Amino acid sequence: MATKTVNWNTISGPEVLVDSQKSKRNIERMRAKAAHAHVALRPHFKTHQSVTVGRWFGTPADTPIAVSSVPMARTFADAGWQDILIAIPLNPRQLPAYNRLAQEVKLGLTIEHDDALKTLRSLQHPVDVYVEVDAGYGRTGISWRQHERIDALLQQASGLTSVRQVGLLLHAGNSYQMRGDSGIAQVHNESLSRLAELVERLQFPREQLRISVGDTPTCSRMSEFPGADEIRPGNYVFYDLMMQRIGACDWQDIALAVACPVIARYPERGEVVIHGGAVHFSKDFVTIDGKPCYGQVMHMTASGWAGPVIGAELRGLSQEHGKVKVPDAMMKELKLGDLLLIVPAHSCLVMDAAKGECRVI
Amino acid sequence: MATKTVNWNTISGPEVLVDSQKSKRNIERMRAKAAHAHVALRPHFKTHQSVTVGRWFGTPADTPIAVSSVPMARTFADAGWQDILIAIPLNPRQLPAYNRLAQEVKLGLTIEHDDALKTLRSLQHPVDVYVEVDAGYGRTGISWRQHERIDALLQQASGLTSVRQVGLLLHAGNSYQMRGDSGIAQVHNESLSRLAELVERLQFPREQLRISVGDTPTCSRMSEFPGADEIRPGNYVFYDLMMQRIGACDWQDIALAVACPVIARYPERGEVVIHGGAVHFSKDFVTIDGKPCYGQVMHMTASGWAGPVIGAELRGLSQEHGKVKVPDAMMKELKLGDLLLIVPAHSCLVMDAAKGECRVI
Repeated sequence: MATKTVNWNTISGPEVLVDSQKSKRNIERMRAKAAHAHVALRPHFKTHQSVTVGRWFGTPADTPIAVSSVPMARTFADAGWQDILIAIPLNPRQLPAYNRLAQEVKLGLTIEHDDALKTLRSLQHPVDVYVEVDAGYGRTGISWRQHERIDALLQQASGLTSVRQVGLLLHAGNSYQMRGDSGIAQVHNESLSRLAELVERLQFPREQLRISVGDTPTCSRMSEFPGADEIRPGNYVFYDLMMQRIGACDWQDIALAVACPVIARYPERGEVVIHGGAVHFSKDFVTIDGKPCYGQVMHMTASGWAGPVIGAELRGLSQEHGKVKVPDAMMKELKLGDLLLIVPAHSCLVMDAAKGECRVI
Repeated sequence: MATKTVNWNTISGPEVLVDSQKSKRNIERMRAKAAHAHVALRPHFKTHQSVTVGRWFGTPADTPIAVSSVPMARTFADAGWQDILIAIPLNPRQLPAYNRLAQEVKLGLTIEHDDALKTLRSLQHPVDVYVEVDAGYGRTGISWRQHERIDALLQQASGLTSVRQVGLLLHAGNSYQMRGDSGIAQVHNESLSRLAELVERLQFPREQLRISVGDTPTCSRMSEFPGADEIRPGNYVFYDLMMQRIGACDWQDIALAVACPVIARYPERGEVVIHGGAVHFSKDFVTIDGKPCYGQVMHMTASGWAGPVIGAELRGLSQEHGKVKVPDAMMKELKLGDLLLIVPAHSCLVMDAAKGECRVI
């Protein structure tokens, strides 16, 4: 493979960099895993929100995707994607937008409440409908224990003329609180066994249900998804510091960093300040030694970045400023205007802040 | 005054609302205060980032402003502002952009390091140069104790042909850690007395220095700014939950809220989930009862919002979802698709996330 080089001189301010080789490797690995596990793959595009990156997953018309908002569905529908699941509970105020989308693409909607049926009844084009199940995360979805409520909702939804297919949707976001494979496996096994218990109790026939599960930690580290028809991970396209800390990826898998110029040096406090703040990184963080860490400085190479610079961490953020703790050896070398390449705590929020704009290297 | 009414039916998703009456009152109050205190006013436009809102401060050509990035400077220069201070340390990689801006407007740059002089020497058009002083905040700037270093920098900068005016710039961001007038006064008095001590020690003549200070808490609550030529608050245009907690404003001064539809109800956990997440609110928070709070639900009125709904707080955020704790009485009334109007922890980051787009009511 030809070695690419990056012209660092053309970067003047904070800029999101995406390493296409690493990202495409992540995409391919998940594709192969899904094939091996005999589940369909519906990548969640909320992470990158980029049509360019979206095309790395395959031909748009042949790639089912998940998104988390109507504007995202609109962006990808306009760019040629044909099978789009909006994986956030239905919002009755969006009926006109659902109608337009359902006319153009195979639209999937997520529900968890009787009230949503009114909106479904008003649709003019058929949609797929997923009832969201909460198997322990505690954010959205009907508790897996409430099988009668879920049954009733499936029955009612499937009886509507506007509904083509019904299913169950699960997001085990509690895997984000875990560390290491045993923790991830625990959430994975618990979620899927609760889902199995629910399906067992339903009167609604399993063969008429499509079951969609997935979050990046379990999809990255587990190899079987018993009971699921499809997996729906998103963050794996780039990964980030949070995923590395969870153990969902290794450093070399992280495909996104933010390039930030040094704008001030404080040898006496072991810090530099970069142009790069909450509006670039978001205020999401991982906790290291009891304190928030918003990003990890990486070794810069001719073609991008290699492993982490030990002790060089983004420890404070205001709107446009970032405080980076740096080790002494690095402090001595850093000059005003030097770039730091920083893997953020949370790639999804970085790409959202950048509105999907990034420099592909 | 004619009572405005808002057509709530036209809001379908998360949307930033700006109450123009409240905002204009905030703007006018600060203008009157600056006039009374005999200091110039240079509002920091990083909070709203909106040309529409910017015009509420007065005729663009007659309104000196501060911004915190080159793209913001570009936006406001293109829209007619003529006196623009970039209040973040100079970034040598932005030389071409500085050159373009300095050709068009009265540009101010901020420095705090010898290395920045190289960039100033390469400018083709005159600029104002402010040396940033750190009077205790500990983010950027040269410590007020290092008067010799500051003196040398002022002397060198003022000797450059590209430099029209030199000054000192102070941002006492440590006022954000305070609560109530006595805390705010403490930061205010300490910062300004340290600045006075520095100026006293400088060989550089005071009458040739322009001194710019300011942050929203001290500018909102204090009435005199001894030693300053201008004040530079930003957040006061909207205020937010953080400012209310600090005591910098009252509830009725807060001019920005995010309208979010309810997409799920959980009476058993006393929560609703809204469409409105980290990409709308940012992950900045205030701490209440030891836990993060990202926003406060307000009472909805025909024309906007009134005071806070006690016990209704935005307590959890993921990318597009928000968890709102609601009191029992409110829970009973809330239906799917109802709007909640939520004052965010931090207005600046909300407007940045919205890229300056908002519905003015």
